Amino acid sequence: MIRKILVANRGEIAVRIVRACSEMGIKSVAIYSDADRHALHVKKADEAYNIGSDPVLGYLNAHNIVNLAVASGCDALHPGYGFLSENPQLAEICARRGVKFIGPSAQVIRQMGDKIAARQAMIKAGIPVVPGSDHNLESVEEAVALAKKIGYPVMLKATNGGGGRGIRRCNSEDELRKNYDRVVSEATKAFGKPEVFLEKAVINPRHIEVQVLGDNFGNVIHLFERDCSIQRRNQKLIEIAPSPQLTELQRNYIGKLAVQAARAVGYVNAGTIEFLLDADNQFYFMEMNTRLQVEHTVTESITGVDIVQEQIRIASGLPLQYKQSDVNYRGYAMEFRINAEDPKHDFLPSFGRVTRYYAPGGPGVRTDAAIYTGYVIPPYYDSMCAKLTVWNLTWPGVIERGRRALSDMVVYGVKTTIPYYQQILQNPDFRSGRFDTSFVEKHPELIDYQVPRPKELLAAAIGAAIAAHEGL
Amino acid sequence: MIRKILVANRGEIAVRIVRACSEMGIKSVAIYSDADRHALHVKKADEAYNIGSDPVLGYLNAHNIVNLAVASGCDALHPGYGFLSENPQLAEICARRGVKFIGPSAQVIRQMGDKIAARQAMIKAGIPVVPGSDHNLESVEEAVALAKKIGYPVMLKATNGGGGRGIRRCNSEDELRKNYDRVVSEATKAFGKPEVFLEKAVINPRHIEVQVLGDNFGNVIHLFERDCSIQRRNQKLIEIAPSPQLTELQRNYIGKLAVQAARAVGYVNAGTIEFLLDADNQFYFMEMNTRLQVEHTVTESITGVDIVQEQIRIASGLPLQYKQSDVNYRGYAMEFRINAEDPKHDFLPSFGRVTRYYAPGGPGVRTDAAIYTGYVIPPYYDSMCAKLTVWNLTWPGVIERGRRALSDMVVYGVKTTIPYYQQILQNPDFRSGRFDTSFVEKHPELIDYQVPRPKELLAAAIGAAIAAHEGL
Repeated sequence: MIRKILVANRGEIAVRIVRACSEMGIKSVAIYSDADRHALHVKKADEAYNIGSDPVLGYLNAHNIVNLAVASGCDALHPGYGFLSENPQLAEICARRGVKFIGPSAQVIRQMGDKIAARQAMIKAGIPVVPGSDHNLESVEEAVALAKKIGYPVMLKATNGGGGRGIRRCNSEDELRKNYDRVVSEATKAFGKPEVFLEKAVINPRHIEVQVLGDNFGNVIHLFERDCSIQRRNQKLIEIAPSPQLTELQRNYIGKLAVQAARAVGYVNAGTIEFLLDADNQFYFMEMNTRLQVEHTVTESITGVDIVQEQIRIASGLPLQYKQSDVNYRGYAMEFRINAEDPKHDFLPSFGRVTRYYAPGGPGVRTDAAIYTGYVIPPYYDSMCAKLTVWNLTWPGVIERGRRALSDMVVYGVKTTIPYYQQILQNPDFRSGRFDTSFVEKHPELIDYQVPRPKELLAAAIGAAIAAHEGL
Repeated sequence: MIRKILVANRGEIAVRIVRACSEMGIKSVAIYSDADRHALHVKKADEAYNIGSDPVLGYLNAHNIVNLAVASGCDALHPGYGFLSENPQLAEICARRGVKFIGPSAQVIRQMGDKIAARQAMIKAGIPVVPGSDHNLESVEEAVALAKKIGYPVMLKATNGGGGRGIRRCNSEDELRKNYDRVVSEATKAFGKPEVFLEKAVINPRHIEVQVLGDNFGNVIHLFERDCSIQRRNQKLIEIAPSPQLTELQRNYIGKLAVQAARAVGYVNAGTIEFLLDADNQFYFMEMNTRLQVEHTVTESITGVDIVQEQIRIASGLPLQYKQSDVNYRGYAMEFRINAEDPKHDFLPSFGRVTRYYAPGGPGVRTDAAIYTGYVIPPYYDSMCAKLTVWNLTWPGVIERGRRALSDMVVYGVKTTIPYYQQILQNPDFRSGRFDTSFVEKHPELIDYQVPRPKELLAAAIGAAIAAHEGL
């Protein structure tokens, strides 16, 4: 069994992993940049090491991080999401240094990271894919010729992309010609690789993804699906489990499809298979994320399975604790990504000091926060500073719980997406449980809100003033 | 449907009820004494009214409170627990004034409040009771004669008592004679009524209670049991659902017994039937609490049923949403009563300013708190200032989650029971899931701990100092 884990990440996901370690009696080691010296993950871990003055480079230096893992006596490393989590080299370096990588093999990370190789593997496994190219595009002319064959609109995508980045929709030859160099350049900048390919665009799809778990003994199960259709510019905002727009038959089908896909590539550890569901109720494989996802919390809420603990158990060489028939879901869960952004100004990041933070409480409310009162959100990282996950037995119930919990949650000092989510929860299309990935774009009016000044804030400010006055 | 509720209580339970109202789209009205003007329930409710300068009397004045409900346009009143929650007069006044009382009828409250009448009703309904007196004791001589007949040890109890108050164990005639006047005096002081009775003492019993729900259409269901054996001087400290010490057969039996008991008295709304389980696995009816209980949260965690919302639905005249077969439980939940007390000094109340409060987060953690950073806990009320409820799929898992969440929870400025609970969670007897109501008494060594100074506190203090310096 693993005894000490280096958490190669920061923010709420590093805290999440440290919590899992703590519950399992496993020691945890945090890493932090200078900018992160007051971050919560540093405080929560058993040990913490500074990885340099650059806010980002330290988190991306696989060699240094694995050296640190070895030097601090860690026998395993958890990459979280983002940063190096889908970098096959990290898994390879870990393997060479005798540190267990809590994730799949480098080979599978590489295969799924190459979107064309992933497509080929899925086609071979009998998984439906969107019509598209079976190799990297050589030139814009080849792209234009292929697009003519499969029909517009098409999606131009970075072959080594993911997470909604390096991806553009092209409705015509004109747009394809205009976007080609742009996507190549984006791909090079974001992923260090210029290769691109194209697929037929699925019109206003629903984003449905399935959580899978595989162990080293060939067992693979799914933990049902998540609906992540509420997105803005391919970035998820609200995630729901199970999807309110699937029938039981569809749920059963997509779950089995995901297990089949994971089995086909010999998948080990936690992963997510993302599908698009079109208006004609066809599922298409989109991509596989070979890591823990931000929105794993909604799956934990409906199934009761602790996904991070399962990851650690699997990496320890233990078999899955659950057979497929052991896993069931109850009620609905909804996650809100609390981003330090100003929705009214094109979601401009809003960094700085959190002058007050009150976590929401009561039934069916989970918070995974990286902030606390007095914490300064640094400008160098992703703007997501907390996640709110709510649960209720019913779909109308989870909406009302979300509304209540968002109003219970106070983040003062920075702008957040909280009031915007309150607007979404009031929208009849959303409440009906029928929406696709165009929802946010189609409802610009939801940005039109007034932020009420909560009564708590004044009282809290007075309380703080009194405390300061009394020298506490 | 009820549209506006007066919450006739304070502290965490008032917040809990306001949250249920908010999720149901029902307006809430809080009441508060001068001492409670900065209390959280005042901030969370839609409206709040001062009920006078005396810290306690206002919460006990049924006539004034119902007047306030009528004047503020409330069509219902929720009594919470404690204060007037088991006072049949409040239910009667509500009925006279056309305000729906969210609880059972005055007649049932009165019958179950009179412990002798309750015993008689249970005997008639075929529910096992402890051998004891069938009428109030006239004198100490009558008590001694009866005790001789049923055998020592005996419990001397206030007939109108409850909640573990006005109750003494007597191991001999000597002790019975010594305690008689004491219990009469306690009963008079605490409940305004001097009547006492006695029952044979059940030796080192386990405290097992069953949550029931009944509607106005004769439907009664149970929501499984809670194990509240971890008590100190008859006050519950940690509650667990389901009990780790019942077999499925026992669980099924006690659930059905509770439904039978509730049906027998025509019970409507949420209630709890408390049983003792002796070493020979016999269940004995102890008492019925005709109100919401502190520990309802563990039942909510395992069943997913929102008990407060069900109470409101029932009082609105709606039928139960669930049949018995719709209700199931999953995993284990454990509630810790976070009391502002110093366990090392005989649990002396520790009131004053909460200089820092950080709620715990992550998976399977629920907080119901009445405190916030800067809040001053007034000395006039119960010392319970927050509840921490954790959930996990397994018994070992819920213990580890409890440990982790307690270490995540920071309450600074007052002493709390948090470190004491950490000790209990390490105890092998507790961990084995085998314990009875003598556990706390039998383990005085658990008080012997060092309070670590959490790393967070220093960092937070620095953060606060910087914030103050910058004039925030």
